[in-house]
Formats: sequence, C-alpha cells, structure tokens
Amino acid sequence: MSQDSEYSEGDLRNTGMSLKHDREWDYELDRIVEAVEERDATKVGLQFPEGLKRRGPKVADDIRERVPDDVTVMLSGQPCYGACDLDTFLMKRTDVFVHFGHSPMKNTDKVIYVPLFSNVDVFPIMEESLAELDDPAENPDVGLVTTAQHMNRFEEMKAWLDERGYEVHTRKGDDRLTHEGQVLGCNYASADIDADQVLYVGGGKFHPLGLAMEHPDKNVVIADPVNNVVTVADTEKFLKQRYASVHKAMDAEKWGVIFCTKIGQGRWETAQEILEDNDDAYLITMDEVTPDRLRNFDMDAFVNTGCPRITTDDGPQFHKPMLTPGEYEIAVGNKPLDELSFDTFHGTW
Amino acid sequence: MSQDSEYSEGDLRNTGMSLKHDREWDYELDRIVEAVEERDATKVGLQFPEGLKRRGPKVADDIRERVPDDVTVMLSGQPCYGACDLDTFLMKRTDVFVHFGHSPMKNTDKVIYVPLFSNVDVFPIMEESLAELDDPAENPDVGLVTTAQHMNRFEEMKAWLDERGYEVHTRKGDDRLTHEGQVLGCNYASADIDADQVLYVGGGKFHPLGLAMEHPDKNVVIADPVNNVVTVADTEKFLKQRYASVHKAMDAEKWGVIFCTKIGQGRWETAQEILEDNDDAYLITMDEVTPDRLRNFDMDAFVNTGCPRITTDDGPQFHKPMLTPGEYEIAVGNKPLDELSFDTFHGTW
Repeated sequence: MSQDSEYSEGDLRNTGMSLKHDREWDYELDRIVEAVEERDATKVGLQFPEGLKRRGPKVADDIRERVPDDVTVMLSGQPCYGACDLDTFLMKRTDVFVHFGHSPMKNTDKVIYVPLFSNVDVFPIMEESLAELDDPAENPDVGLVTTAQHMNRFEEMKAWLDERGYEVHTRKGDDRLTHEGQVLGCNYASADIDADQVLYVGGGKFHPLGLAMEHPDKNVVIADPVNNVVTVADTEKFLKQRYASVHKAMDAEKWGVIFCTKIGQGRWETAQEILEDNDDAYLITMDEVTPDRLRNFDMDAFVNTGCPRITTDDGPQFHKPMLTPGEYEIAVGNKPLDELSFDTFHGTW
Repeated sequence: MSQDSEYSEGDLRNTGMSLKHDREWDYELDRIVEAVEERDATKVGLQFPEGLKRRGPKVADDIRERVPDDVTVMLSGQPCYGACDLDTFLMKRTDVFVHFGHSPMKNTDKVIYVPLFSNVDVFPIMEESLAELDDPAENPDVGLVTTAQHMNRFEEMKAWLDERGYEVHTRKGDDRLTHEGQVLGCNYASADIDADQVLYVGGGKFHPLGLAMEHPDKNVVIADPVNNVVTVADTEKFLKQRYASVHKAMDAEKWGVIFCTKIGQGRWETAQEILEDNDDAYLITMDEVTPDRLRNFDMDAFVNTGCPRITTDDGPQFHKPMLTPGEYEIAVGNKPLDELSFDTFHGTW
C-alpha cells in the first residue's frame, strides 16, 4: 500500500471489495439444488447475515429457476450475526435450510452452510503488515488467524509468511470453530499459540480487538484487505469502557440476568449459578438483546450470559450497565478488579 | 365527567387509572402456585405485555416466596402485543407458563392466562357517552363491546344500558375470542350485531378505530374510562393513509410477502396464494415485523400476512409501502379500489 499510504482507514477505493460484483460470489447453487432434488423438498429456507440480506431475492430467483414449481423458497427476515444465530423456525420448518456467510458451528444435515469466501487479494496488505511484525531474523514466531471469509486462502497465507522466514504458528481452537486459524467474535482459541505476535488477516476491527483483549500479552497486527489498511490492535478504549461499566454496576441491587435463546448463544449453567447466589437477580429470556427490550425492566444493572460482543460493543447503548458474567463477579465483589478479562464462548449449539 | 369537561383526551388526573397501585391488580398467585405444586414444576415462565413488563420482577418475587427453592422463575424479555404473541420458547421449556394481561385465544393446559382485569369504574364515562348515542325512545338498538381488561364488568354494563331503555345487542364473535362482547385489535366479529350504533367501553382509540374501519356503516361511540373521555370514532385519517399506501404500491415490481412466525399471527395459505400468482413476490419470514428488519430487503413494496395492525398503524414508519393482503389485491389490479376494507384475523393458534 506504499503508494496509497495517505488513504484513511475506511477508504474502499482501491480495495478488492470495491471491485466486487454480485456474480463473483459463489452461492453454491448446485449443492442447494442437489439437496432439493435428493430430499424431494417442497420448502427451502435461506438465511443471510445482515450485510448480505439484500442479495437474498436474487439467490432465491436463481434457485427457483432450477427447482420444480411447487418448491417454496423462503428468506429469513430475522437478524443474523453468526453461525451461532440460526433461524431455528426456518430450520425446523423447511426441507432444505441454507445458512450463508458463516462456516459450520456444528456438523449437521439440518443445515447447508455456504461460507461465501471473499475474492479479495490478501497479499498486498500482508506485504504492508510486515513493517509491524518483528524482523524474522530476530523473532520468527508469529501466529496467523483469519475469519471464515478468507479461510480459502489460509494455506497460501501460511506459505507466504513461511517463504519470508517466519515460523508460522496455527491451531484449530476448539469445537466452536470449523477451521485451523479461524477466529470468531467470541472465540480466539486459535490464537492460543506459542508466539508473542499474531497476524490477523481480515476486514474490520471487531475480531482483532477481541483477539487482543483475550490475549493481552500478544502484539496483534491487523492486515485488513477490505479497508486496505494495517494497524496494531489497541484495547485501551475498550478496556476503559469495561472498567467504567463495572464501576457503575457496583452499586446495583437489582440485577437482570439475560439468558439468550438463540441456538448458539445460550449459557444456561452460567445464568443458573448467578441466580442461585443472588436473591436480587431476575432471569430474563430473549433472543435479540436490545436496549429497547431491556428498558421495560426496572433493573439497576444487567449481566448478559449470551453473546459477549453485545455486552462489550453495544453496552454503552443500554440504559443501565451491562456486564459479562466475569465482570459481574467483580461488580458484586466475588473477584478482584484485576481479574477483569474478555468473555469468550465455547462449545457448539 | 360534567365537572371535568375541560380535560383533554389524554388527561389521567381524575381517572381510576391514576389511582391504581400495583397491589390492586390480581395476579392470581394462588392459581400459579397451585400449578407449580401439582406439576412438581422446576421452571416457571412469566410473560407480560409491554406496558406491564416492569411489574414482572415483583410478581416473580411473590412467586419465589411461595414455591420451593429449586424452582427457577423466568421472565420473558420478548416483545408481546397480544394473546396471539406467546413466547413459545418459554412455553415449551417451562413446566408452568403464565401469560398475563390477555384472555385465552385457545384453551390449552400449556398456558395459564391471567387476564389482569382493570379496576377502573366504567359507569361515569358510560353516563357521559349517552349524549353521543341515539335517544333510546327513538333508536333503542345499541351494540356493546369492550376489551379483555374490562370483561369482568360486561354483564353490569349490559344491565346498566338496559335500565336506561336500550336494547343491548351482543355476541361472541368467533373462536379467536374468549368472551361475548370482546374485541381484539384484529377481530371485531363481536360487533356483527343488528344495530347501527355500537358503544365501545375501553382505553385508547386502537380498538374502536379498527371497529369503525371493519363496520363503516355503524356509529362507534367510544367511552374511554382510562383517559376519561367520550369521542366518536373517525376513520378519515386512517382511510386516507391506507389509500395513499395502496396508490404508492401500484407501481411496485418486487414484492416482499411477509409471513409472521408468531404463534397466533401466521396466515400461510394467504402468503402461498400471493406467491403462486406473482413471480416477483418473495416470501420473507420473521417474528417482529419492524422497519429495521425490512430495510435489508431491496423490495418495492411489502404485503404483510401477519398482524394487520402493524401494517395499518405502523405502516408509515416503513421505508416502502406495506399493505394488507386485501390491499395488495387492489394494488396489483385484481380488485377495484372501492373494495378496500379492513384486514381482520380469525381462528386461533
């Protein structure tokens, strides 16, 4: 990016993303149509994450052209933020249910996962990122992680770093992840590697910020091929917000304990443990955890056992402090403040 | 209300509502606790409509005091707008599921319905409403309807009108309704009576506006004991908005057909019929039908087979015109404009 170094973080002009057209995505229609035929399906459900929902009708058209007339294609209108967030209504009521944009959280015949790999070229920005990594002659150890969208290039990325003298450390974190080197917003087990620097290749700061929070001892270099920028993850603002929320919640008497009913976001035991220990805690069940929904409950603070990123990233939008289960333990005095850590999520659905 | 005639419509100062305290509601705790004991329940789910959600924690406290320690009481954090809108997640996963604030839409052991009858005195405002009804000496026929909240006084209301010389016409509309004389936002079959005037006793204009739309030949007098005001339903603004939406949608090519997944709001056959007749129609499934969720879909117009009141009352908030199934038929040219009518909902869940 040497010739473009004046570009700001959000500039998409010279990135692969800005050149991408609908037809370049691979919706794996053959696989879907085959499943319709094999199962003699009459109902097909399609679920897209928020950013891709507008592509749904065209994909539905393409499928309808290739399947019998009596097949109904249904688009999920539910919000969707991950493989943890399946539209279970559609899943249960359709013969073929396709989830686009995420890799499998669990292998099951009930869901056809179409990951929608990105066709953006990651190597120019990886070249730029070398300036932020240690010289391999001095410290060759580097971790490598990416998101589902770029998983199709992961082996190439590894080889590319290897050729440049790095000892690349990778692992498949745990059952919640499909691939070696994959990270989710709530799971950075793939970065549990023996290196004090990690290269994250992918769009945005959502994932690398969580990564740096979960692994505060590691230097997290972000090679963002979508926004065409290299940065180093800085958790200061994030951490300050978390400490502020914990402090605000220390005076709370009435606690709302949120149990999220989304298929891959429920931590029932965690919720139960909080309730058993606290007579002023009330269990609230919901799928979408939003400021509007919680405003109806007259609580002093909330602890969210569901998606940790709603707690940490959307937290300031709620009318009362919202904490992760670990932060809750600090706020009620069960743990010291210096044990504040990032909340991660394990297991499948 | 003669001495208070200067009060504006929304003034609550001298109404029963303004005097009401939490303890005056009957949450029927005995019935709930009995069910817990009988079923050896370990999980109790409580669902309140939006306006009553803040009372949930206190009701949970009262129940927890009276049941064994190992019973978990869960509050539904899902939005709730009627007996059509049960939290099926809680219903299926709790041993005792209590739905407050609405009368049963279907008799089932799965749900304990606690209607929460209002203790507001309806007779002062009914006295006022006589000025808007025909003189019984000239036209004694009057229909009488109310909402679930005031059902406990229905027989008294009938007797009160009868004593004043009226011939009171009432009926139980259909299976969707529990009581004679009951109306829902989507169902006015109880007003299908042989009288050209109907007295509606209840709070707000939501129900009587629908009533007047569904029965445009009848004079609908509103005796509102909550806001302490008598008015006559005027559908002009409502109708104008509907005509405007239909006109805007006449140029639409791509239609989003919404199938609502809420237990009592789905009209699958209606959605299917639209899809079969229109190749440019796309089925979208969702529970909450909100402007945010539909903004993700690049459609020219929407037809909502779910709750008609979201279509008509919230319609202007959506980015594209949203029509009821009947209005859709007009917009695509299958029916003439003068067949525009109010969309009602029948059957149970």
